[in-house]
Amino acid sequence: MASYAVSRGAARFTEEQEALVIKSWNIMKDDSANIGHRFFLKIFEIAPSVRQLFSFLCNSDVSLENNPKLRAHAMSVFVMTCEAAAQLRETGKVTVRDTTLRRLGTTHFKKGVSDGHFEVAKFALLETIKDGVPASMWSPAMKNAWGEAYDHLVAAIKQEMKPAALL
Amino acid sequence: MASYAVSRGAARFTEEQEALVIKSWNIMKDDSANIGHRFFLKIFEIAPSVRQLFSFLCNSDVSLENNPKLRAHAMSVFVMTCEAAAQLRETGKVTVRDTTLRRLGTTHFKKGVSDGHFEVAKFALLETIKDGVPASMWSPAMKNAWGEAYDHLVAAIKQEMKPAALL
Repeated sequence: MASYAVSRGAARFTEEQEALVIKSWNIMKDDSANIGHRFFLKIFEIAPSVRQLFSFLCNSDVSLENNPKLRAHAMSVFVMTCEAAAQLRETGKVTVRDTTLRRLGTTHFKKGVSDGHFEVAKFALLETIKDGVPASMWSPAMKNAWGEAYDHLVAAIKQEMKPAALL
Repeated sequence: MASYAVSRGAARFTEEQEALVIKSWNIMKDDSANIGHRFFLKIFEIAPSVRQLFSFLCNSDVSLENNPKLRAHAMSVFVMTCEAAAQLRETGKVTVRDTTLRRLGTTHFKKGVSDGHFEVAKFALLETIKDGVPASMWSPAMKNAWGEAYDHLVAAIKQEMKPAALL
């Protein structure tokens, strides 16, 4: 496992932020399939054109709500994002398999994913988590902790965003 | 005034949709400065990088909340959008001054505004209107009416998106 060191970033991620991320992730974990799905539906609600980046959505006559490939993909992205966030401080780095990170970098590069896409996904993620935890648990500090963890993951992906041939 | 005919679009905009737009616009009109400002703050919340498209936000040390140029710009965009929506069915076209539409087209072209930008602005507009009217007034039909009116305005702007030299 592991292997993308962002030491400066990890140093900035405090114990309090870690606690907020882990507390909320523990609440959401068992419902990852549904919450992850809502995360992607929120992205597509904000920016419908993003659907074109997913080959399994093109030429599909199954609705977004019922597309099993979307559900599976959304859950894996959501779980990876949350697990990486929960382990950020403990490991001192963004904890994703090396090969996964390289694959993510290559795929995002190939698809032409831009800063704007990452921004929309961040907003959608934070809105989804806000709705995924009890209202009394959500706070500006929790939003900030998740936002920062997400930024670290994106920084790690961006660093791997290059053509496959250069790897 | 006037002058961008979208007859097919206007035909699709029903009396009921017109009534929903006008009813909500009448509620918001007097508070256009604040609601317009919230519209732009929502855009920047979703996609912070969009701020770079506005020259009056670059090199400014005034916060977004207190920037008078942003407030003025946001209000004029919001009022124009709502007025065009409210008049869509009556006039059978997107009602914006010819010169305004050409200027809007040129500016959006020059700044490299993309489909994604228009999508984010649409989402932000609908969220802002939802929060700008009484909760009992908001409905899926009202959301749909505003969304369709917005799409007509964007179609009119896109048709004018070309370099100034070609005009």
